[in-house]
Amino acid sequence: MLTPHRQDTNSLYLTERLNALGVAVAFKTIVGDNLQHLSDAARIALHRADIVIFSGGLGPTEDDLTREAVAAALCIGLSRSPEILTAMYKRFAERRVSMPENNAKQADVLDGADVLQNNNGSAPGQWLDTVVDGHRKIVILLPGPPKELMPLFTEACEPRLAASLPERHFAKRWLRIALMPESKVDAIAAPIYQTYTDVESTILSSAAEIQLHFLCAKPTLAEAQQRVDELTSKVEDALDEAVFSSQGEPLEEIILLRLQMRGLTLATAESITGGMVASRLTGVAGHSDTYIGGAVTYSAHLKKKFAGVSDEILKQHGTVSDQAARALAEGIREQTGASIGLAVTGVAGPGPLLDTDSIEKPCGLVFVAVSDGVSTESLQKTFTGDRDRIRTFAAQQALDLLRQKLI
Amino acid sequence: MLTPHRQDTNSLYLTERLNALGVAVAFKTIVGDNLQHLSDAARIALHRADIVIFSGGLGPTEDDLTREAVAAALCIGLSRSPEILTAMYKRFAERRVSMPENNAKQADVLDGADVLQNNNGSAPGQWLDTVVDGHRKIVILLPGPPKELMPLFTEACEPRLAASLPERHFAKRWLRIALMPESKVDAIAAPIYQTYTDVESTILSSAAEIQLHFLCAKPTLAEAQQRVDELTSKVEDALDEAVFSSQGEPLEEIILLRLQMRGLTLATAESITGGMVASRLTGVAGHSDTYIGGAVTYSAHLKKKFAGVSDEILKQHGTVSDQAARALAEGIREQTGASIGLAVTGVAGPGPLLDTDSIEKPCGLVFVAVSDGVSTESLQKTFTGDRDRIRTFAAQQALDLLRQKLI
Repeated sequence: MLTPHRQDTNSLYLTERLNALGVAVAFKTIVGDNLQHLSDAARIALHRADIVIFSGGLGPTEDDLTREAVAAALCIGLSRSPEILTAMYKRFAERRVSMPENNAKQADVLDGADVLQNNNGSAPGQWLDTVVDGHRKIVILLPGPPKELMPLFTEACEPRLAASLPERHFAKRWLRIALMPESKVDAIAAPIYQTYTDVESTILSSAAEIQLHFLCAKPTLAEAQQRVDELTSKVEDALDEAVFSSQGEPLEEIILLRLQMRGLTLATAESITGGMVASRLTGVAGHSDTYIGGAVTYSAHLKKKFAGVSDEILKQHGTVSDQAARALAEGIREQTGASIGLAVTGVAGPGPLLDTDSIEKPCGLVFVAVSDGVSTESLQKTFTGDRDRIRTFAAQQALDLLRQKLI
Repeated sequence: MLTPHRQDTNSLYLTERLNALGVAVAFKTIVGDNLQHLSDAARIALHRADIVIFSGGLGPTEDDLTREAVAAALCIGLSRSPEILTAMYKRFAERRVSMPENNAKQADVLDGADVLQNNNGSAPGQWLDTVVDGHRKIVILLPGPPKELMPLFTEACEPRLAASLPERHFAKRWLRIALMPESKVDAIAAPIYQTYTDVESTILSSAAEIQLHFLCAKPTLAEAQQRVDELTSKVEDALDEAVFSSQGEPLEEIILLRLQMRGLTLATAESITGGMVASRLTGVAGHSDTYIGGAVTYSAHLKKKFAGVSDEILKQHGTVSDQAARALAEGIREQTGASIGLAVTGVAGPGPLLDTDSIEKPCGLVFVAVSDGVSTESLQKTFTGDRDRIRTFAAQQALDLLRQKLI
């Protein structure tokens, strides 16, 4: 965890679960495998917080020092548990291998601690309810691998923590908004959510999308739900059609559900995004009757071959043009027999594109179009950033144009 | 940083840059916006380490307490810098807005510290070379937003840190391996890299890919490069054709470069991956003459329409079959006029597929095929995991089959 490559997923997971129990995380510390450093960190943590969770360092090697460090910080002893030891010998015997000597230290338990059986690995967890300087402290030791830590915390620790805390119920809602700047979303949403001081509001920004999370804790679930629903619907009204999901579904799933409800089918023709729209649509399970596929019309030749775009349009307006986008949407619809055709073309960069013989199209210029056989709608946008960002925004814009058409 | 949603990218960045300077990171601590908590954490950190970097908490609000906390921990004062204050007033005046009173605290500088000018935001950084308990300590204050922290560290801090440390030169190489289990890669590579105790070896596992990173530090660059090159080439020989890149290029770029060198063009027909292979190929800039596009043949209808797969094959063998994969690869090649056709079909799940009228194909079953007009090669695989994982592995397998054909 002290290398540049490891994302700290355990602490994010624990934070989410603890917050859901109404416990705020006040400190996180990452320490190397050194007994002095570890016991110092344990001592500091035990004075800072009421609940201290240690993860990792419970294995059989000499680097696994969490048990010893916590014992030293609490000035208590460690006893080797004959039950754990027997179970370990048994497990090795079943596999017909003799247990290496160093494994025995995994049976060392803090004085007074309960053992938390680990069904996904060899090192058990530990739970100690104790008193430090006159204050009650809950000390939890968990194994480091996420596949062991997560079930052990959820199954063995959460019910005990919940029983130790005042009863509270949590309600949560979230809104997803496409292609709007974070500052604009917040300018609309903040004046509303700031009046709900009992609801925790979080705004998150990811690729071409903003999410608003609302969390409320109350003595009863009905109270919490009522507050969070009331706030969510006010913010949704204010943001209006910019909100594509109020239950957390991704944009492509919302689109597929709307198409399915109306018995419509969809095909795509992608140039700049080269399959990104298609791969998002095919990432949702159970919709192969709605999204039938399409073409990656990267070359001019395939724009003609698979989407029937005319030489005239390509010569007169270029491959990156409103006319080409509209022809792609209409053409892919006709060629595939789908009810709706969706198309996107643009310049992903780096640098501009010399389109047709003479006209230079700037990097970031994107055209999207959607056609249902009766009418064709299109949109021109210019996105900034690198190739990845421009393509991600172009795909999001194509999907959002279709969503708007389906409202 | 104490919420479940924020990945701690700053500390990973700083760790990478510090490691490159030969500095190991011994502790990381995350603290909330509370003066007592912050100054306690600062005090502990100053006793633990020789270099202490603080990020965030340098803004104008009441929650921005890093300057005050570090001053308290070091028992030194803060002075308001007239130069910074004047520059701030000037900047606000240029925008014709009056400066809010609270902004002035951004001009507070630790006694004895040098100001690090921030060209990407309003809060300047600070550098203090001091002595605590008879030991030299370097204390660095950096703004929290990554877009401000990263350039300020690279430009203003790295040269100064390098000048304070013994001279060392670093050489780095990395190998990328597709579709081999981490344990198998390590079983082959570990006996070799373990004999190079002066090279730091790291094995990283991501979606359908393993990476081996080798880093060596020596008094001269030539020495470091020689050691890391020697190790890399030994490991590459042992792993043989499984290594697709020894300079870090992604698999799709390696393929496009090989095709380009031979003047070949490529088209794809994707069923299970629904555009993932195409979007990886189109993610690489400058290869639109090599990868011309293709089809997302999600429905049986489009397998026939765009890749000329016969009704007979689909009825007799089903859409998920070796025969269908081969017909897709051959068909997309013929329909598009590309030199090479690449195809993938399979069951992404969840659950099996009732293919043709009677035969059930299991979730995870994947067929890939590649055709150059002379011969067609194909491969059958069964991948485990969820829909995302199966599709990711299927796309990687399709690309890797093509790479093998191009060797």
